[in-house]
Amino acid sequence: MNEEFLSKLLQDVKDGNTDVDKALQQLRHLNPGELGFATIDTHRELRTGYPEVIFGQGKTPSQVAEIIAFMLERKNNILATRVTEEMATQVLHVCPDGIYNPVARTISIRRQEVTTPSTYIALVTAGTSDLPVAEEAAVTAEIFGNRVERVVDVGVAGIHRLYNKLDIIRGARVIVVVAGMEGALPSIVAGLVDKPVIAVPTSVGYGANFGGLSALLGMLTSCASGISVVNIDNGFGAGFLAGMINRL
Amino acid sequence: MNEEFLSKLLQDVKDGNTDVDKALQQLRHLNPGELGFATIDTHRELRTGYPEVIFGQGKTPSQVAEIIAFMLERKNNILATRVTEEMATQVLHVCPDGIYNPVARTISIRRQEVTTPSTYIALVTAGTSDLPVAEEAAVTAEIFGNRVERVVDVGVAGIHRLYNKLDIIRGARVIVVVAGMEGALPSIVAGLVDKPVIAVPTSVGYGANFGGLSALLGMLTSCASGISVVNIDNGFGAGFLAGMINRL
Amino acid sequence: MNEEFLSKLLQDVKDGNTDVDKALQQLRHLNPGELGFATIDTHRELRTGYPEVIFGQGKTPSQVAEIIAFMLERKNNILATRVTEEMATQVLHVCPDGIYNPVARTISIRRQEVTTPSTYIALVTAGTSDLPVAEEAAVTAEIFGNRVERVVDVGVAGIHRLYNKLDIIRGARVIVVVAGMEGALPSIVAGLVDKPVIAVPTSVGYGANFGGLSALLGMLTSCASGISVVNIDNGFGAGFLAGMINRL
Amino acid sequence: MNEEFLSKLLQDVKDGNTDVDKALQQLRHLNPGELGFATIDTHRELRTGYPEVIFGQGKTPSQVAEIIAFMLERKNNILATRVTEEMATQVLHVCPDGIYNPVARTISIRRQEVTTPSTYIALVTAGTSDLPVAEEAAVTAEIFGNRVERVVDVGVAGIHRLYNKLDIIRGARVIVVVAGMEGALPSIVAGLVDKPVIAVPTSVGYGANFGGLSALLGMLTSCASGISVVNIDNGFGAGFLAGMINRL
Amino acid sequence: MNEEFLSKLLQDVKDGNTDVDKALQQLRHLNPGELGFATIDTHRELRTGYPEVIFGQGKTPSQVAEIIAFMLERKNNILATRVTEEMATQVLHVCPDGIYNPVARTISIRRQEVTTPSTYIALVTAGTSDLPVAEEAAVTAEIFGNRVERVVDVGVAGIHRLYNKLDIIRGARVIVVVAGMEGALPSIVAGLVDKPVIAVPTSVGYGANFGGLSALLGMLTSCASGISVVNIDNGFGAGFLAGMINRL
Amino acid sequence: MNEEFLSKLLQDVKDGNTDVDKALQQLRHLNPGELGFATIDTHRELRTGYPEVIFGQGKTPSQVAEIIAFMLERKNNILATRVTEEMATQVLHVCPDGIYNPVARTISIRRQEVTTPSTYIALVTAGTSDLPVAEEAAVTAEIFGNRVERVVDVGVAGIHRLYNKLDIIRGARVIVVVAGMEGALPSIVAGLVDKPVIAVPTSVGYGANFGGLSALLGMLTSCASGISVVNIDNGFGAGFLAGMINRL
Amino acid sequence: MNEEFLSKLLQDVKDGNTDVDKALQQLRHLNPGELGFATIDTHRELRTGYPEVIFGQGKTPSQVAEIIAFMLERKNNILATRVTEEMATQVLHVCPDGIYNPVARTISIRRQEVTTPSTYIALVTAGTSDLPVAEEAAVTAEIFGNRVERVVDVGVAGIHRLYNKLDIIRGARVIVVVAGMEGALPSIVAGLVDKPVIAVPTSVGYGANFGGLSALLGMLTSCASGISVVNIDNGFGAGFLAGMINRL
Amino acid sequence: MNEEFLSKLLQDVKDGNTDVDKALQQLRHLNPGELGFATIDTHRELRTGYPEVIFGQGKTPSQVAEIIAFMLERKNNILATRVTEEMATQVLHVCPDGIYNPVARTISIRRQEVTTPSTYIALVTAGTSDLPVAEEAAVTAEIFGNRVERVVDVGVAGIHRLYNKLDIIRGARVIVVVAGMEGALPSIVAGLVDKPVIAVPTSVGYGANFGGLSALLGMLTSCASGISVVNIDNGFGAGFLAGMINRL
Repeated sequence: MNEEFLSKLLQDVKDGNTDVDKALQQLRHLNPGELGFATIDTHRELRTGYPEVIFGQGKTPSQVAEIIAFMLERKNNILATRVTEEMATQVLHVCPDGIYNPVARTISIRRQEVTTPSTYIALVTAGTSDLPVAEEAAVTAEIFGNRVERVVDVGVAGIHRLYNKLDIIRGARVIVVVAGMEGALPSIVAGLVDKPVIAVPTSVGYGANFGGLSALLGMLTSCASGISVVNIDNGFGAGFLAGMINRL
Repeated sequence: MNEEFLSKLLQDVKDGNTDVDKALQQLRHLNPGELGFATIDTHRELRTGYPEVIFGQGKTPSQVAEIIAFMLERKNNILATRVTEEMATQVLHVCPDGIYNPVARTISIRRQEVTTPSTYIALVTAGTSDLPVAEEAAVTAEIFGNRVERVVDVGVAGIHRLYNKLDIIRGARVIVVVAGMEGALPSIVAGLVDKPVIAVPTSVGYGANFGGLSALLGMLTSCASGISVVNIDNGFGAGFLAGMINRL
Repeated sequence: MNEEFLSKLLQDVKDGNTDVDKALQQLRHLNPGELGFATIDTHRELRTGYPEVIFGQGKTPSQVAEIIAFMLERKNNILATRVTEEMATQVLHVCPDGIYNPVARTISIRRQEVTTPSTYIALVTAGTSDLPVAEEAAVTAEIFGNRVERVVDVGVAGIHRLYNKLDIIRGARVIVVVAGMEGALPSIVAGLVDKPVIAVPTSVGYGANFGGLSALLGMLTSCASGISVVNIDNGFGAGFLAGMINRL
Repeated sequence: MNEEFLSKLLQDVKDGNTDVDKALQQLRHLNPGELGFATIDTHRELRTGYPEVIFGQGKTPSQVAEIIAFMLERKNNILATRVTEEMATQVLHVCPDGIYNPVARTISIRRQEVTTPSTYIALVTAGTSDLPVAEEAAVTAEIFGNRVERVVDVGVAGIHRLYNKLDIIRGARVIVVVAGMEGALPSIVAGLVDKPVIAVPTSVGYGANFGGLSALLGMLTSCASGISVVNIDNGFGAGFLAGMINRL
Repeated sequence: MNEEFLSKLLQDVKDGNTDVDKALQQLRHLNPGELGFATIDTHRELRTGYPEVIFGQGKTPSQVAEIIAFMLERKNNILATRVTEEMATQVLHVCPDGIYNPVARTISIRRQEVTTPSTYIALVTAGTSDLPVAEEAAVTAEIFGNRVERVVDVGVAGIHRLYNKLDIIRGARVIVVVAGMEGALPSIVAGLVDKPVIAVPTSVGYGANFGGLSALLGMLTSCASGISVVNIDNGFGAGFLAGMINRL
Repeated sequence: MNEEFLSKLLQDVKDGNTDVDKALQQLRHLNPGELGFATIDTHRELRTGYPEVIFGQGKTPSQVAEIIAFMLERKNNILATRVTEEMATQVLHVCPDGIYNPVARTISIRRQEVTTPSTYIALVTAGTSDLPVAEEAAVTAEIFGNRVERVVDVGVAGIHRLYNKLDIIRGARVIVVVAGMEGALPSIVAGLVDKPVIAVPTSVGYGANFGGLSALLGMLTSCASGISVVNIDNGFGAGFLAGMINRL
Repeated sequence: MNEEFLSKLLQDVKDGNTDVDKALQQLRHLNPGELGFATIDTHRELRTGYPEVIFGQGKTPSQVAEIIAFMLERKNNILATRVTEEMATQVLHVCPDGIYNPVARTISIRRQEVTTPSTYIALVTAGTSDLPVAEEAAVTAEIFGNRVERVVDVGVAGIHRLYNKLDIIRGARVIVVVAGMEGALPSIVAGLVDKPVIAVPTSVGYGANFGGLSALLGMLTSCASGISVVNIDNGFGAGFLAGMINRL
Repeated sequence: MNEEFLSKLLQDVKDGNTDVDKALQQLRHLNPGELGFATIDTHRELRTGYPEVIFGQGKTPSQVAEIIAFMLERKNNILATRVTEEMATQVLHVCPDGIYNPVARTISIRRQEVTTPSTYIALVTAGTSDLPVAEEAAVTAEIFGNRVERVVDVGVAGIHRLYNKLDIIRGARVIVVVAGMEGALPSIVAGLVDKPVIAVPTSVGYGANFGGLSALLGMLTSCASGISVVNIDNGFGAGFLAGMINRL
């Protein structure tokens, strides 16, 4: 899969530095860490430039702790999302310098310095109830080496609140907009800037919101250009992608 | 059902002006016009203040023409909606002074003067493709005696176009906002005015628009106050209701 | 955005009463109250004639209390909806004269006298289970200065119960109809009156009710004219809009 | 499956009137007519009291004609539904005394006299556009030996039209109510009578009607008792079931 | 609405036995019992032949108890459905001879003897998990004067279990079939009998069952004739309708 | 239904070895075990080669225990799925050598030796959170006499993890792939092997996962050949079917 | 990816039979045929044992013809599905011995003899309208070297038609069941056999069938064991998988 | 809205270079071009850096031509999407040097040179049927000054086709992945690269594809990081956003 690696391996075989069996083993080599219940993607950082992130939901607290314990050996920065308090307790036992953010429901463990570019991500939130999702995005972007500027509670029912913050938004390299209900804020923002807008629908609302469906459909069908959408409540996905774009 | 009517009827029976059988018949009286395939609600105007409107869709051209021929005898103004060209041809044969509006797909027949109040309805359209629905609303409101001011193609992707027309919108007694795609325009408008906003989702869009569902859900879950919603593409319903409010 | 304001500001700049920097600041002026987690839309009353309403759901109790504490300084009447008992306890600590309505799940704080017109809103409920939604509508309409006449439990399975109350309904300037299950009551009411009907679908029911979807679709596709619809269980939205129409 | 038949068969075997092989064959006996593309359920009449009905949709015109030709040999009355004009032409070629009803899209072939009870089915239609579905129900009920009384276009927007026909409706043994849009009419009818109501949702409407879904959900979640529902546009199913109940 | 009543009333007015005001009052007469939160439909029995049934869900325990206390005065048999244990406790306090069925979640109060016809209802259940819904149907049918024969757990995965009970099923006047998951049992039953089949989809299942949707759609689209469907988990509706048909 | 049985029975009747009444009874013979609330399909093993499996969900703990007690008499191996801890406690009381697997939520009781073929089932899991469903599949396949090789946590975000295990997967006779979220893993696997792939969508995920709908639709619309799909979270169904194919 | 191939390649490099650059090229080797608009998966047969199948839908007639022309050079048997008449005309021009099946909408081109095992696939169809989907399954299974026994039109409304054919069904190694509407037939079949059942939902039906959704959900939630499901109308997928299992 | 502009305007007013009325007019200034049926957002390029794009769908051919004629005066590059042949004919009449791309359904008119960065967009397509959507993306990206490298027909059923093109994909600055059916390709790609992936679901497929829903949900719930999604079939949106990111 990695041409340089293959090229070198074949040269080694040719030069007799590696015999066929070993080479064969190495071709099967990219051996992820196996924990029985999980197969850690240990070379994802090499492949994609980013370490694997632990998605807590659906795992038992001890599974989360064990995975993190395994990853700690590799000295990477670590991010776990959808972390319950019970999980956090177990993890912090294993790794006392981990930071649990109960709003974002994340654990961050910093082991490496990541250089942060001077550009920043604007993180725009429609309402107070969208904050947990927004905070997950912020924590994610930050651990991967990005500055985040927050613009809070500027939903379309009082759209002038947004105009007051246009400088911050227009100054960003990429913009994350988090909104529930009708999810109209990304359309407005995208109509005012010339930067990529990552829209995050949230499940905030009731009735015909149908668990975030109204905001999701609204964002997908936006009449404005320059918008793309991540899953409902997927703060992590938006923060990760925004960081990727910010660091291009 | 109508107390005055009942009161008078009973008095007539008591006074011997009406005998029991006739009264009984009159109690069953409100006899709609029966055409075999349709039962015209001839006293709807007395009951609700508005004559019955013919909904063309699903009827045959000759059924529409026959219903209109029946109603013509009553000298009311007549409105038919969802009228195809084929229906229009048949109707105009029966009633040459009917006006067929091919954009709105309506036929209007004016037989009575309706007084029009000085206040007006602002009819705001997000995009050019929403015009047929908007025009249906306009024709409906106008035949029921309302002035309509149109504000065209001011969707949220270029929201300053809306601000240019805020005077017209704020000056209205009631506002109809027609939008497809994410249907965000009613939220913006409602956040800027203190008048009732009737939101009309349209089936304009594609993909996750799902035939107008995205706009419908967006409008229903709007974070702004003072909005209510009618059926997808229901220009008639919005125009009728707006007229009703404008004439209160 | 506000022409008079802009006109005066520019005149002030011209006359030297205001210098450019200050004017610039004022153009950015409409500075909402910022609480870190919320941006209070402090001039919504000026813009739309109605103060901002606090939507409790998704906020923490202390956030709700802090927002209300902030708003109390402005001497407006205050309404908070979707208020849990825990929120209410915290708010009443801050503002002991607030009134918590546990059926409607609202807190009302009256600081200003609002003149109430002589016309009234008829609030019609299909069943006993729809009462919490209806009560939210009533509290909302009342705090914004409207008289509300309640007609309770007159659903279509025993439609004569409705006829007994037709006088009250026909006497209203605007009618709110709250119904779950098949949501047919607004169609019946709208067929009997010449006033705007605001239909509120509720999530009352089970099975194919799908959380209020059956009532919502039924109301949207009503064959009667003069109806518009708000979100499922959105008593607030209906009460607000009805009040707006009643006070036109 | 049929005890008498089994009992007799076994007795015959015992008595030597039938040998084992023949009996075995007879147990496999209920051999439907096989046409290659269809397996005619020739003994359905014995089993359920009603002959098989041909559902035209999805079949080719020649398949429909071939099936009918096969069934003609059995001298039963025959009903085919969802018959296109092209199918009808081919069938009438085979069987010139068949009757094609283009509104109901049915072909009826009468070969047997069916006694008709004195009771009748009331067939109530909400709007003119619902007539094709209603007519399919009527034709079905009639060929199976039932009298049908039609009450046309009495939808809930002008509910007094229904009251004018209450005598007919209350006099029936079973009532079929056909309605599109919000599908509220069955709830009203069921609240006024003490007879079973079979509700038929139609796909008449647009937008949030979603192909009949609004009427279907409305009827399923009706707050009235004594209602059951058949598939959208399923006039045949309602007519068949109503006939079955009428003939109990 | 009731012709005899009207006829007599008018005659009384004519004869001077009743004056106009009183008659007017009587025309408004059908005055349901009003409890503030509920409007008891006290003359439903006269109108439809069946007393009103209390639907517990969404009501508070004291509301249920109060409604029953009110109805007790009328000496009717009473049925309450969707009754929680907490409701039952309050009701049995008011009415100690009420019978609470915790499987069916019903309270039955017998005050009148109801004659029961010799025919019976077959109540067929696909699986053990469908029993609560089936039991609600049984209790309902029984209190309205019907004999119910139960056939339990004969779902299509082992269809011979059904054949063992065909005698019971074929002997019934009407059949209720309760099934979750794919809801196929009604199709099988209807193909074997010549009696009306009332299909009750249940929410038993998981995944693509989507809360009963799979069974509901399956029953609505059944290829068999003579089936109609009630709401998901609506044992009451099926029992009521089956009783109505059984007593025709 | 079983020809040999019928043939023999008829011969017995003919030979006088069985009289008509007894034969009749035997034709009705396949008498399942009746427990009042359940009808055990005792001859399913004869008919399909597999004993009935108890689906715990929706049953009470004592119903589950009673059914198992009944089945124990037949000396079959027994499998119960969707078993809660409370059910397990009651069952293990009745049958102390039952094995409760709390991850798979199953109880297995082995009473017979089942020969196991040398071929095996590969059970591939996309993520750690899918393990409960995968484990249900494994337990099911194993009790019916199959070897299962597990390949854990090799989802498409790090697809090389899958390649490392291709030997195991390609060596299987049939492959079960368990995945939530976008459910893409079965497509990848099916593109790499020439064996049947049974895809199990899980409800793992959030937002637009809609309870497993995203994985379900993804697997159904797979562009790869050789895939079929079972219900969301239906580990049992996949394990059962895979075992059936493995043992062909 | 193919171990043998890799092993040999590395040996060749070591032995100097292949130099590094060539080997590198070969590792990139599995070079599919590139047509500009398509990338033919020319070594799929080596990888999965089956040649690539052309899915006609969404391609232009000339694209289909060009792909087939390209594949003809490889002397494989070729199957194209969802082939319109216009496509067929163009393809038969290129390849006159191709066989176009207008019911199945397939083109088959036989260039190799495929050995056919003695076991067979039973292909069971619920109704005549399901034949096109069934025929697509049959053609697919046959070109990949399988015998198919057809059992036509034995849907659950007349279930004894199925019993007449049980021998054929029970004698098969694997069973494909094609059904629309409620899709109940696979449940019945699976309850009677001990062989894998592949269920194919079809879009045959109307109304609440929702384009095959009712049959799809019914099959997915089947209460019987041993069933798996393919996409709606996916005859190809079922035929392919059944052939794969039949040839295990 | 534009601070510099405002600042200068106010200074002009102060300096007497502009009087109040004119300034007021200028504040309202951003006067879009009004065509009666459309309001051209003429200063969008200044605001967002990109000219307005014409969305053809839902407009009449002459409306499209008129809008383009209006825009031609501004000497911008012009892009129209969803252009039918009939529209194209009218437009090319007005502007003979416009280029109509019938696959992409676009018209491009180049009037300005746009500098193109050295980086490029990789445009990856799962299947041949996805080409129209991909081509719309390519045309869009190119007219806004981007180089696009196409990788065609490398869907997951033959994933090695993708590996052959990894160099091209990994060398891009941003990647657009277009896929229908299960939409799994973006997950695979995102797991192999460290660049933003824009996923475009297409409506290619049938049955449970539900018009692109399966691909849409699959992409939204992807287990890979760095993905965001645009509307179904929204090639324009993806091409626009990719260009924006490529040009950051």
